[in-house]
Amino acid sequence: MSPAHVSDEDVFRGHEGGKLSVSATRPLTQARDLSIAYTPGVAKVSRAIADEPALASRYTWADRLVAVVSDGTAVLGLGDIGAKASLPVMEGKSVLFKTFAGLDSIPLVLDTTDVDEIVETLVRLRPSFGAVNLEDVSAPRCFELEARLIEALDCPVMHDDQHGTAIVVLAALRGANLVLERAVRDQRIVISGAGSAGVACAKILRAAGAGDVTVLDSRGIIHSGREHLNPVKEELAEITNRQGLRGGLAEALQGADVFVGLSSSTVDGELLSRMAPDPVVFALSNPDPEVHPDVAARYATVVATGRSDFPNQINNVLAFPGVFRGALDAGATAITDEMKLAAADAIASVAADSLAADRIVPSPLDPRVAPEVAAAVAKAAESGGVATVPAS
Amino acid sequence: MSPAHVSDEDVFRGHEGGKLSVSATRPLTQARDLSIAYTPGVAKVSRAIADEPALASRYTWADRLVAVVSDGTAVLGLGDIGAKASLPVMEGKSVLFKTFAGLDSIPLVLDTTDVDEIVETLVRLRPSFGAVNLEDVSAPRCFELEARLIEALDCPVMHDDQHGTAIVVLAALRGANLVLERAVRDQRIVISGAGSAGVACAKILRAAGAGDVTVLDSRGIIHSGREHLNPVKEELAEITNRQGLRGGLAEALQGADVFVGLSSSTVDGELLSRMAPDPVVFALSNPDPEVHPDVAARYATVVATGRSDFPNQINNVLAFPGVFRGALDAGATAITDEMKLAAADAIASVAADSLAADRIVPSPLDPRVAPEVAAAVAKAAESGGVATVPAS
Repeated sequence: MSPAHVSDEDVFRGHEGGKLSVSATRPLTQARDLSIAYTPGVAKVSRAIADEPALASRYTWADRLVAVVSDGTAVLGLGDIGAKASLPVMEGKSVLFKTFAGLDSIPLVLDTTDVDEIVETLVRLRPSFGAVNLEDVSAPRCFELEARLIEALDCPVMHDDQHGTAIVVLAALRGANLVLERAVRDQRIVISGAGSAGVACAKILRAAGAGDVTVLDSRGIIHSGREHLNPVKEELAEITNRQGLRGGLAEALQGADVFVGLSSSTVDGELLSRMAPDPVVFALSNPDPEVHPDVAARYATVVATGRSDFPNQINNVLAFPGVFRGALDAGATAITDEMKLAAADAIASVAADSLAADRIVPSPLDPRVAPEVAAAVAKAAESGGVATVPAS
Repeated sequence: MSPAHVSDEDVFRGHEGGKLSVSATRPLTQARDLSIAYTPGVAKVSRAIADEPALASRYTWADRLVAVVSDGTAVLGLGDIGAKASLPVMEGKSVLFKTFAGLDSIPLVLDTTDVDEIVETLVRLRPSFGAVNLEDVSAPRCFELEARLIEALDCPVMHDDQHGTAIVVLAALRGANLVLERAVRDQRIVISGAGSAGVACAKILRAAGAGDVTVLDSRGIIHSGREHLNPVKEELAEITNRQGLRGGLAEALQGADVFVGLSSSTVDGELLSRMAPDPVVFALSNPDPEVHPDVAARYATVVATGRSDFPNQINNVLAFPGVFRGALDAGATAITDEMKLAAADAIASVAADSLAADRIVPSPLDPRVAPEVAAAVAKAAESGGVATVPAS
């Protein structure tokens, strides 16, 4: 169904009072229930955990609780609108965690944009949760923040705008390549945008075996000869652009097989005519794709967007619920590249059942996806040595 | 029902997987639902809040969400067992908030006992919640922490171990006094214990008009001539003990009308014979009352404990759900003495329907209590000028 059928009134009514509710897992109606859930019974459970801290994972909700954390600096396409205004998005994430992966989660939005302070805050709150989904934090701060949190916290941490997007892009490319009978290692891939999603996409594509990836930021192609590159782009310059291309999008797209738009800018459809035959175009800016999919379809054989009202919707919801569920099921202490690659493969394998040029990824609502992703991620965690608890 | 009928196995089974769950207030099953709760719809709500921050109280859950905060330093009778081990208690509080007052809440347990750091952490998280229930923080740190949080946060903050207990003790004394046809202003009241509950009880009794309150700590009666009093006890010495009593419990109880035990110690039943005729004895230490209620009944006309297996159970759950509900309903920015006094009166008014020496307070499960307390607290907030939003 097209979002066009959703009125502003529908949207605001759907948010009235917020979108989340906390409830008890067991009813409390009798004195007996009170004696178990609260005093005096609860003291026995607290004492048991004090004696043996590992019991907390069995008798509290914390070890399977995802903190959905944001400072509100890069909210959807809206930019730095602050913590309070980011809350509806974080509540939405929590709804999706529950709906697709059965995971409890709580939004924690922070009235500070200082990386040190955010890390410090989550370290202090560490006993309250079991994983961190970092969300809508602006680049390049998001790279440092995620790295610092991974180092400081002994639990899964993932910045979804980076890796959720990267996982789904890779899954979609796997689907497109199955349709086109191509392999990622042979493709020239152009990524427009070197923000959180662009950087993570470049990295996961390299990790998946893509040999030729070129990334552009607002100043054009990123190459090692450019001045004033920040450390993240310096690293990109090292691992991408093996041909040493310079210039802008016209130069980058010449002969390219795949275009991935993650730039919140517009691209002249004509430019796509420079690509190699039967190209793949992912125009993922939201709500306005870099190229309208109807225009892109004139040049490209496979077209995907982030929108629900066109075929091939590339949406993070295919990835993050299952990734966190799998990591928590395995008792993983981190989310590794292997786990991300396994997630992408799992998404692609669900799509493989009914693959076509306009069905390269499953529907965001496909209930098969999160369990498949979770199982694949848990398996990768266990074989990769980051799982501390056997999956149940 | 007696907790004796609850086995350890019952208790641990009742905590398996934790006691809380986060769910969506509206189902998400169709593409349309996704467009409303998440992209692209949610962007409209976030933008609206960015433009007009007050809309957050309407379109997010945060303004009615209670953070149940602890550092695990004074958990029930278990002492300083740490944040992780305190979690079952905090989850229990959340269950009670939901069950009795319909309020959503989340446990936030902190891996720091530094007052500055706890305040700083909650200030940073301020956009995430609408009120703070402070819990199981050791004295005297709890007094400073609560005062600092009240100053730093523009929302209701209450340390339940202090004020929840104080409210219920006052309510119970009102009930006892109705049975005995006495008035608090004429009574000699002795409080054993100068921790969080003892201090708050002394203060609320003074605020309720009690003229003669004497407080003891482990070193005996608190009086202004004693050395090395901390600032909290210095204040107590000023507002209590108008007769300038010195000595121990024997001296304090001589001719006293009311004994309130909040000390986690034991009291020789014989001592109660020194009290005035028809005395009132609240032996509130948990799980072991200062005097066994059967022993206390030999000397006292009205006896209450914190236990569910004896009459007159004085339990905080009669107070805190309704207090926070009333404060949030009124849009209150603080919880004032007037609101606490109104809560105590509301509890007493519910008990008044079926008053007897063994029914001076309502049952902790009485569903009438929280709504009555909430209404009284909201009214007091509005007339006291701390309400910013009219009660709906």
